[in-house]
Amino acid sequence: MNAEILSVGTELLLGHTVNTDASEVARELSTIGINLLYAGTVGDNPQRLREAVEQGLKRSGLVVTTGGLGPTGDDLTKETVAEAAGKRLVLHEESLRRIEEYFKDRPWGESQKKQAMLPEGCTVLQNDVGTAPGCVFETADGTLVAMLPGPPSELGPMLKNYLIPYLAAREQAVIVSRNIHVFGLGEGTAAEMISDLTEGANPTAATYAKENEMFVRVTARAKTAEEAEALCEPVVREICKRYGDVVYSIDVDGLENVVVKELARQKMTLATAESCTGGLLAKRITDVPGSSEVFEMGAVTYSNRIKTQLLGVPEEMLREYGAVSEQVARAMAEGVQKCAGSTLGIGITGIAGPGGGTPEKPVGLVYLAMTDGKQTWVRKLPGGSRSRGRASLRNAAASNALDMVRRYLAGLTPVAEMGKRP
Amino acid sequence: MNAEILSVGTELLLGHTVNTDASEVARELSTIGINLLYAGTVGDNPQRLREAVEQGLKRSGLVVTTGGLGPTGDDLTKETVAEAAGKRLVLHEESLRRIEEYFKDRPWGESQKKQAMLPEGCTVLQNDVGTAPGCVFETADGTLVAMLPGPPSELGPMLKNYLIPYLAAREQAVIVSRNIHVFGLGEGTAAEMISDLTEGANPTAATYAKENEMFVRVTARAKTAEEAEALCEPVVREICKRYGDVVYSIDVDGLENVVVKELARQKMTLATAESCTGGLLAKRITDVPGSSEVFEMGAVTYSNRIKTQLLGVPEEMLREYGAVSEQVARAMAEGVQKCAGSTLGIGITGIAGPGGGTPEKPVGLVYLAMTDGKQTWVRKLPGGSRSRGRASLRNAAASNALDMVRRYLAGLTPVAEMGKRP
Repeated sequence: MNAEILSVGTELLLGHTVNTDASEVARELSTIGINLLYAGTVGDNPQRLREAVEQGLKRSGLVVTTGGLGPTGDDLTKETVAEAAGKRLVLHEESLRRIEEYFKDRPWGESQKKQAMLPEGCTVLQNDVGTAPGCVFETADGTLVAMLPGPPSELGPMLKNYLIPYLAAREQAVIVSRNIHVFGLGEGTAAEMISDLTEGANPTAATYAKENEMFVRVTARAKTAEEAEALCEPVVREICKRYGDVVYSIDVDGLENVVVKELARQKMTLATAESCTGGLLAKRITDVPGSSEVFEMGAVTYSNRIKTQLLGVPEEMLREYGAVSEQVARAMAEGVQKCAGSTLGIGITGIAGPGGGTPEKPVGLVYLAMTDGKQTWVRKLPGGSRSRGRASLRNAAASNALDMVRRYLAGLTPVAEMGKRP
Repeated sequence: MNAEILSVGTELLLGHTVNTDASEVARELSTIGINLLYAGTVGDNPQRLREAVEQGLKRSGLVVTTGGLGPTGDDLTKETVAEAAGKRLVLHEESLRRIEEYFKDRPWGESQKKQAMLPEGCTVLQNDVGTAPGCVFETADGTLVAMLPGPPSELGPMLKNYLIPYLAAREQAVIVSRNIHVFGLGEGTAAEMISDLTEGANPTAATYAKENEMFVRVTARAKTAEEAEALCEPVVREICKRYGDVVYSIDVDGLENVVVKELARQKMTLATAESCTGGLLAKRITDVPGSSEVFEMGAVTYSNRIKTQLLGVPEEMLREYGAVSEQVARAMAEGVQKCAGSTLGIGITGIAGPGGGTPEKPVGLVYLAMTDGKQTWVRKLPGGSRSRGRASLRNAAASNALDMVRRYLAGLTPVAEMGKRP
């Protein structure tokens, strides 16, 4: 089935909002083998919207609109699409009840009710986050039309929980995806290593770059979930075998999530001492709900004085080797672990730039140390290559620190030589 | 002039790449008063691309394409557009020299030369970042066509430095924009307060929501920069007057940038003690290059034990009032200021959720304290409203802390009652 997306909203044409809806719909459709041929955007203008809808109905088997389902006068999508498809709008009682429930403790206007008016005979797609329901229906010519709300927080759940299953069921297919998350291998190399596996049609396997990481999504379609899973399984296993211990999880996104979960399982705690990352590592760990169980303390020690005072890094060490050195990273990790009384301690010192680099210690040079109180390991990021900017360098340093902990918790050495480290 | 954007690239239709190019072009066109009516995406398919180009040439005064200018067989934009517009492609010698220069120390293939073939009579838009030049030309029917490369790092500079000035010059206009940044006023209220000013045509004024903040952009067009600035000035002044001290800067984006700059100017230093924000405040401060001059230390003290040990928060205070209390926030701020020997100290304690809330202390409740060693101020975020999620609550808390420092440095009281606090 060939599909097109039509995004509706003047704000998209003013460039105030990046159209992430379109990519999300595109991505999800591709997982169930629906081919997107066009994506278009029009403003809240009835005539141009009508023309775009008519063009879509003519040339595509599935037209997905995003936006314009709300209560205001600018929200024209349902009216326009229904007219173009020759459908009346009728009141959907259950949606009205849901809207009334949503506003139970708040003032609301009659205009909200407009959201419960839906094309006759449609399948209603429930909105679990906001007020405007979506819908999907078939025109007299057999074209499928789906309408989704614009706000990404509403569109995402409706798309994944209602529209995609609806479309998959129509195509008599169940879709199962597994994501293999990798840290320590560039996407290019990673893609080459499995190039023979990314050519399959069922399951499909595709590589995706993420900041400082990559992942592979393996997707299979079958009549049942069991069959789809059985199709995925050998491919997932083969990919994990080829990549080895740079695979940090299957289906858990983000090193911090893996690390917090595993620390809790092993009843261990962590403390961090950060210089160049300035609290980013602590922030990423505490992004995870429940991290308070495993995160004892974080210290952001920018100045040498505080490194000495708080972490006990010897003044003469700072003088002799400089704050950005293996010795100081080690002393920071050991100092914070002792201060916090935690199982593990991390120390990070480096040059995040843009200023402060020298030929011996270029921007991007970072020393990461991890201690368990008995042994301390140090990982060095050499820096000095074409600069990637302060934010990206800092994020790479924090990810490498998390990866050291992840590897330690998995019984691997925290500083094993890996592929090209991000 | 009415414009449309046509983005070319199969990767966009697979959803692997979010189309930020389209929003960037839209935003820049709107600053020079060019109205975008459509934005479309097609894959690397000659026939569908041709149809989309022809439709664009028919209905719009300006068609801007993005993507498909590179050396590979998939890069079809120039050939297809030139054909649809009835133009031949001819070799542009200077572009060829630039490509040869780019590859001087690297191997390259003949296919790279294809990038120097451009529509006859076009104005070449130089690529300062990559190899593929862009161009702009007029068709026999008087439609303007511009082609830009797909990679955002190449498109951005070419758009801002070459295409927009070219279009502005054609329209005989210089564009000047001023951004008024506001913290402490919701976008809705802020928009209402200046609704009479957002109706003007020159200068235009428009409000934009940002996470926990908002800003107003005032844009004027005139024959000279001086004239455009003179048009902006009274509107900017009037908006600042109406908003009062919730305006935190003109043209400097981000509270942390204002705070770091102002701390440096006043030769003051800052230390932070964070509980619920978990390092996010330190991270945002150290996002700013040069922050090492003003940021003494950050402490992330999740556990009560560390609050007592590191910051000297009395155990009996923690027992009596609980970790999330005005008293503890105060003791954290005062403790970290003393420990670091800094001019100012910040303490943050609260409940970021999703768990841990109670009827008395709901998720979202945060106490923020700031001390200068003589006096300590406390701001309370009450929480308890419909949850906005952990990330958003944490960010709001960090922004409020930065706003307290900003207000102190501006000679205002850090806890003045403001509008609806984000």
